[in-house]
Amino acid sequence: MQTKQTTKSRLEPFALDRAFTFFECGPVMLLSAAKDGQNNVMTASCHASMGFEPTVGVMLGAWNYSYHTLLETGECVACVPGADLMRKTIAIGNCSGADIDKFKTFRLTPQSAKIVKAPLISECLKCLECVVERKIAVGGAYLFVLRGVAAWINPHRKERRAFHAMGDGTFVIDGRTVDMRDKMTKWQDCI
Amino acid sequence: MQTKQTTKSRLEPFALDRAFTFFECGPVMLLSAAKDGQNNVMTASCHASMGFEPTVGVMLGAWNYSYHTLLETGECVACVPGADLMRKTIAIGNCSGADIDKFKTFRLTPQSAKIVKAPLISECLKCLECVVERKIAVGGAYLFVLRGVAAWINPHRKERRAFHAMGDGTFVIDGRTVDMRDKMTKWQDCI
Repeated sequence: MQTKQTTKSRLEPFALDRAFTFFECGPVMLLSAAKDGQNNVMTASCHASMGFEPTVGVMLGAWNYSYHTLLETGECVACVPGADLMRKTIAIGNCSGADIDKFKTFRLTPQSAKIVKAPLISECLKCLECVVERKIAVGGAYLFVLRGVAAWINPHRKERRAFHAMGDGTFVIDGRTVDMRDKMTKWQDCI
Repeated sequence: MQTKQTTKSRLEPFALDRAFTFFECGPVMLLSAAKDGQNNVMTASCHASMGFEPTVGVMLGAWNYSYHTLLETGECVACVPGADLMRKTIAIGNCSGADIDKFKTFRLTPQSAKIVKAPLISECLKCLECVVERKIAVGGAYLFVLRGVAAWINPHRKERRAFHAMGDGTFVIDGRTVDMRDKMTKWQDCI
């Protein structure tokens, strides 16, 4: 059952050419995918913004249910959950879409994307609709190069802090933001 | 001129098989490299831990002086600066090693690495000695896959918070750490 959404609980479009900022700071990611009308979502934390364009590299293994969906459908939505979703995000990473409907189990609201069939997740801070551009074998896993094709944010959300996986089972919530725009002398065109 | 180092101002060895935790959370990175006995350092923020091994992917362009050094020497040191180094780290990103000696200009202390010729940076929280495993063209830049070969931390440092580039000239300092180890039921072997 979906929660009825007010305007403020929905994501709004965001400038695609600024969407590289979504993942540059390394937040824990929720990645949604859909196959045969069935939505799924996974938790990821090994990923990077790949420069000043909306391209994000995500490490996936064949053991991820979403790995197969991405290969078959060639698309997904990469989202940034807020700190209030930390427990839910970790729980999502503990189970597989092969066994349960994670959107239902975790009461996530699928919101229609503009270009891809995979759903946005309304509860997230930011979502980037992506198409799979390349798959590169690295070690025993694969780097999926995802090309952003539409970007969304929820500017009304109260909890705006993302959180970061430390890799040891601890997570760090965003602290203070420091504005250094006037100090980025070499990069004024990028900010 | 190097600052005289006490034991507490030096980096100590860290378990290499846990060093994937250095970059999983997306901290701003300082990358040191050396060529013909000349040390250099650059600031990077488009990078990712590439799974549960000490491999880190870093995006570099031919416009980076360090890009050429990495190609020629095949090695570098990837470091995590603390929040107290934020202004210095941004200033390092505003200039080029082609013009100045950044270690001298920014009063960084080069500490001898164990395996590579590039120096550790004693002032950093963590450093990973790396060899270049692959260079993959992605868009107009390159993803360098760096294989960690030795890891270092400074456990005595007072300021232990890293910071994250938001891509818009603002930076977020680490906030509260939350211990979720008992919730990582699927990943007990990894934490």
